[in-house]
Amino acid sequence: MRGIHLLGATGSIGEQTIDIIRHYPESFSLRSAAFGTNTEKAAGWLNELRPEIISVQTEKAAADVSAVIDYKADILIGREGVMACAAAGGEGDILLNAVMGSAGLEPTLKAMETGMDIAIANKETLVAAGHLVMEKQKETGVKLLPVDSEHSALWQCLDGEAGGVEQLILTASGGSFRDKTRDELKGVTVKEALNHPNWSMGAKITIDSATMMNKGLEVIEAHWLFQMPYEKIDVVLHKESIIHSMVEYQDGSILAHLGTPDMKVPIQYALTHPRKLAVPGMQRLKLWEAESLHFQKMNGKRYRAFETAVEAGKMGGTAPCVLNAANEQAVAMFLDGRIDFLTIDNLVEHAVEKHEFHADPALSHVLSLDQETRSRVEGFLK
Amino acid sequence: MRGIHLLGATGSIGEQTIDIIRHYPESFSLRSAAFGTNTEKAAGWLNELRPEIISVQTEKAAADVSAVIDYKADILIGREGVMACAAAGGEGDILLNAVMGSAGLEPTLKAMETGMDIAIANKETLVAAGHLVMEKQKETGVKLLPVDSEHSALWQCLDGEAGGVEQLILTASGGSFRDKTRDELKGVTVKEALNHPNWSMGAKITIDSATMMNKGLEVIEAHWLFQMPYEKIDVVLHKESIIHSMVEYQDGSILAHLGTPDMKVPIQYALTHPRKLAVPGMQRLKLWEAESLHFQKMNGKRYRAFETAVEAGKMGGTAPCVLNAANEQAVAMFLDGRIDFLTIDNLVEHAVEKHEFHADPALSHVLSLDQETRSRVEGFLK
Repeated sequence: MRGIHLLGATGSIGEQTIDIIRHYPESFSLRSAAFGTNTEKAAGWLNELRPEIISVQTEKAAADVSAVIDYKADILIGREGVMACAAAGGEGDILLNAVMGSAGLEPTLKAMETGMDIAIANKETLVAAGHLVMEKQKETGVKLLPVDSEHSALWQCLDGEAGGVEQLILTASGGSFRDKTRDELKGVTVKEALNHPNWSMGAKITIDSATMMNKGLEVIEAHWLFQMPYEKIDVVLHKESIIHSMVEYQDGSILAHLGTPDMKVPIQYALTHPRKLAVPGMQRLKLWEAESLHFQKMNGKRYRAFETAVEAGKMGGTAPCVLNAANEQAVAMFLDGRIDFLTIDNLVEHAVEKHEFHADPALSHVLSLDQETRSRVEGFLK
Repeated sequence: MRGIHLLGATGSIGEQTIDIIRHYPESFSLRSAAFGTNTEKAAGWLNELRPEIISVQTEKAAADVSAVIDYKADILIGREGVMACAAAGGEGDILLNAVMGSAGLEPTLKAMETGMDIAIANKETLVAAGHLVMEKQKETGVKLLPVDSEHSALWQCLDGEAGGVEQLILTASGGSFRDKTRDELKGVTVKEALNHPNWSMGAKITIDSATMMNKGLEVIEAHWLFQMPYEKIDVVLHKESIIHSMVEYQDGSILAHLGTPDMKVPIQYALTHPRKLAVPGMQRLKLWEAESLHFQKMNGKRYRAFETAVEAGKMGGTAPCVLNAANEQAVAMFLDGRIDFLTIDNLVEHAVEKHEFHADPALSHVLSLDQETRSRVEGFLK
């Protein structure tokens, strides 16, 4: 029985994690859960899974939870609550961090100190402070378990015994606007941007897919998770999202991971690895129904956010933190209807270019820079 | 340093094996080599690799070898010579069996008794007497290392820790005539049949690819090598031969092995596994150059030889031995211009249907049945 601590329990990833825990009650118990204010959704499982700690974002949500549950639990609020969930783990437990954005960083570092493994659905943590997470990983020896479908695929295609990895090849669907030229992106709406062709995901990551920032963040994530130099990470456009990613070896062999686009598969693998167990509701891939799979070279001019991200990754230090904070802010502004789609790229580029670079920022520096960057991006508009 | 014993040293697989041994002289030594009469080709490496035993098919070839080599070796002739190569191994050595047809069976069983691992490029051995080979494998504990590109792919995609294999999925290019209907196969020539679109291989296997008997034999081979019931082995048409085969797990994950069609890759992996080392002259796959990969459901009516083979596999006992012997004979007759292409299927079907079935034939039975079937197939023509 593994104890699960779930941050972001009512989001898209959180909800699917709950399904898996319910499906395998003999294998997993939900020990703590953090979410925002969606008590109605959480009410569907709180009394069944009975987490000992429940963290929410508001006093109102805390009162709602208190009224809903029929057992005794610690109900906490805000940052303190999230950190309490992260601190409640121990060896053998798993933190599944599915919060959005760099807010996931501190709870991840805290959870690692308890000795529990970290299932990372929150790539922004590794982007903003990969060097700190990996340092903590070496100190604590906990495992970092990828949840992103691409990284889960890479993990399953990496064979420690084989050696000689030539490169990691991430696939990219191209997002909502893959059939548009850059010129045609002028004036696209929020609704259009949120219409991802293959994957059903949260709003922020769907916009990141449309700009292809998401693929850039994934390259940085892969760099840290698999300790791979950027020169050995490539991206290929593959619009069907059926090959989730690949590993090329020096003998020319490529191992690839294929499947229907269903986030439950990588989420569950993070929890059950190395075993691959049946996934509730999963649709099997029938390649002859897909008929054909397409591939194209990545085009950095078309996807400027991708280029900016990879360059920030290569710069290292404070650059990816600024990249990520600026992107989070710009995406929020786009979703609010305050800037247009192409301005996201401009704001992020500008923020990275103009920031004061440091090569090895401490945690406090990363956290303040994250906040500061968000204000600076707001300021660019004035 | 691993000692290699190479049967079929001047054939297509043999030649590529020689290249690999020459490329990694610190890892491999050629300890014995058997070939037919192509002394001219063998002269290119005999004095460099200096095998202690050399087996050829004729007195004339033996004399030619004797004149060519500048060191002392045992030069043997015929069946006795092949068996001497197989008997010369020991633990840590590898027999690479690349002889054509069921002639590979006895040397394989002999070599297993010496404790050496067997790299199987000779699928007919497993087809004709898989039950005997697997029995010997259990007795001796030697490894059976796949060399066929499909089986090498499956081997690399199978992860013992994962468990829960849903099915093995072999890919099939469709061979030389994949774009023809069955009606259009009437009157095709030997030359057309030998023109395989993707792979450069020996004549027999190229004809087997055209009839798709080869894929049927591969299903039987996979059944034995991976101890997988026939219900869990599927075949999908994939004309580009870029995905070499796949393993589907019960979580819906499919692991696939991709690469350019180059037999050196699986040959070398059989010798160096679990390590994947650089392969001399290998061309790296660039998926965006391939642009697209295509898949189609297998059609048993179009490829009758495939259906016949899978049915014989499921019957087990003497059926696959008869299937294989009848096919070897029929292909030889086609290559000799004595029957037309579609008659291959008819002769094989007829031979399997009409033979006296036994459920668990001993080696002597398999060997006599093999000979007897060849005569019977000749007799069908009269």
